[in-house]
Amino acid sequence: MSDLERLRRLAEDYLAGLPFAAALGRLEEALRYSLLGGGKRIRPVLCLATGEALGRDPHELLPAACSLELVHTFSLVHDDLPALDDDALRRGQPSAHVRFGEDVAILAGDALLAEAFRLALRYPSPDVARELAEATLGMIGGQYLDVTTDGELDGEGLRSLHSLKTGRLIGACVNCATAVAGVRPEERAAWAAFGGEVGLLFQIVDDVLDATGTAAELGKTPGKDEAAGKVTYVSLYGLERARRLADETRARVHERLEGLPGETSVLEELVAAIRERRA
Amino acid sequence: MSDLERLRRLAEDYLAGLPFAAALGRLEEALRYSLLGGGKRIRPVLCLATGEALGRDPHELLPAACSLELVHTFSLVHDDLPALDDDALRRGQPSAHVRFGEDVAILAGDALLAEAFRLALRYPSPDVARELAEATLGMIGGQYLDVTTDGELDGEGLRSLHSLKTGRLIGACVNCATAVAGVRPEERAAWAAFGGEVGLLFQIVDDVLDATGTAAELGKTPGKDEAAGKVTYVSLYGLERARRLADETRARVHERLEGLPGETSVLEELVAAIRERRA
Repeated sequence: MSDLERLRRLAEDYLAGLPFAAALGRLEEALRYSLLGGGKRIRPVLCLATGEALGRDPHELLPAACSLELVHTFSLVHDDLPALDDDALRRGQPSAHVRFGEDVAILAGDALLAEAFRLALRYPSPDVARELAEATLGMIGGQYLDVTTDGELDGEGLRSLHSLKTGRLIGACVNCATAVAGVRPEERAAWAAFGGEVGLLFQIVDDVLDATGTAAELGKTPGKDEAAGKVTYVSLYGLERARRLADETRARVHERLEGLPGETSVLEELVAAIRERRA
Repeated sequence: MSDLERLRRLAEDYLAGLPFAAALGRLEEALRYSLLGGGKRIRPVLCLATGEALGRDPHELLPAACSLELVHTFSLVHDDLPALDDDALRRGQPSAHVRFGEDVAILAGDALLAEAFRLALRYPSPDVARELAEATLGMIGGQYLDVTTDGELDGEGLRSLHSLKTGRLIGACVNCATAVAGVRPEERAAWAAFGGEVGLLFQIVDDVLDATGTAAELGKTPGKDEAAGKVTYVSLYGLERARRLADETRARVHERLEGLPGETSVLEELVAAIRERRA
């Protein structure tokens, strides 16, 4: 088993065994439906791999890593709602609101967010939860820009939208790991810069896949961005230049990794997998 | 100025001056619209008054107190959505989704919840944020019961629904204050029991007001519960018996307060105001 697959399974098993608040009652079913629908778990794996690079046992990182996946899942459940992206398909399954109704999907998303904080708050220090709150607010701010900005973005605007909507949470995967590992504040900036570039890479590849992938590959409706008139790296630069941008970003991520301390070979593998993913 | 009014203004001013995450951009307007629309601030005042009873300066309690109001406001914004209670009027103003659209209202509710945690995480200890997470999950569980249970509740079921939907957050106002004040865990149970009874009193009075108040008094649509076929203390017991239940609960709250240490006269005032409120 590859190191990436080992970390992915750790996260998957932890998520599957996560106890939710008893007060949620049968709403729990909707949370599990959305959470265990077969995501790639890029965020928790990034957090765990960063932790390992810093010499930490991944088990110590699991609550932080999986709190990030809970926030990601909350955002998918709400973004898929008819009032937002109106997407009926997610991870190859009916979206939460199609399966459970809009009312339950809204509440399930809310509960996933609150559970994310409950999980991040298992640590004695509030640092991980603070990182999670900032990243979540960045992500929501990015989604707000996305729904209110129609085809009016230039390259700078697009980059800033994505650095909020996708980048902040991806960056928080790295930052939560450095927080748990007790990395000194003055050494965290280099790690955070690495996380920021990974987020950018992830988004460019996502835009390319939205333009080129099939529903079967992606497990969601492709071509949605174009149909909705959204500005993407592909609509703005064309497919070939977007691919080149992805390669250039990949090269920058590599350089950043080389400058970081620790055993970063698993992180290199993860970055390669993000660049080469087909779904 | 009464003590209650003094504490209410403290909370009001703190909420009005609260800096939101810069990443939210113009979404901030929707948060402020819902948050500063003239609520009664019962939750923060309960938290501040409990803190004072325990000998603490209310300023020390303000982040905790106002994080509870943010969670309350988040729940109002989402509960008012067409897919949930579908209420166009809130605090005498158009509801958030009427004013800003459903997409923005969903995101604004999400952001209010994340901002609540950011605020609760200002303390060096994660205790307040943990209390907030548990209470929020209880509240969401109660709202889930409320939207999925149609007219099938008995008295026990109704009490349990409300102890989640309203009671947990009201109880958390007391629990956050005891956490900030450093009350020893073994002494917290008596305070928590007081908070639980206040929550119950609040809900019974709310049901009576929904059945008897006018839109002008309430600032929201009255008679909604009955129209939606919801079980309330009034539908279950009739108006007179619901009022008697409120009085009996008020008496129990009074007894609990007498058994608690500290200067509880402001809390007595607050409980009287909750029983006698007209809106």
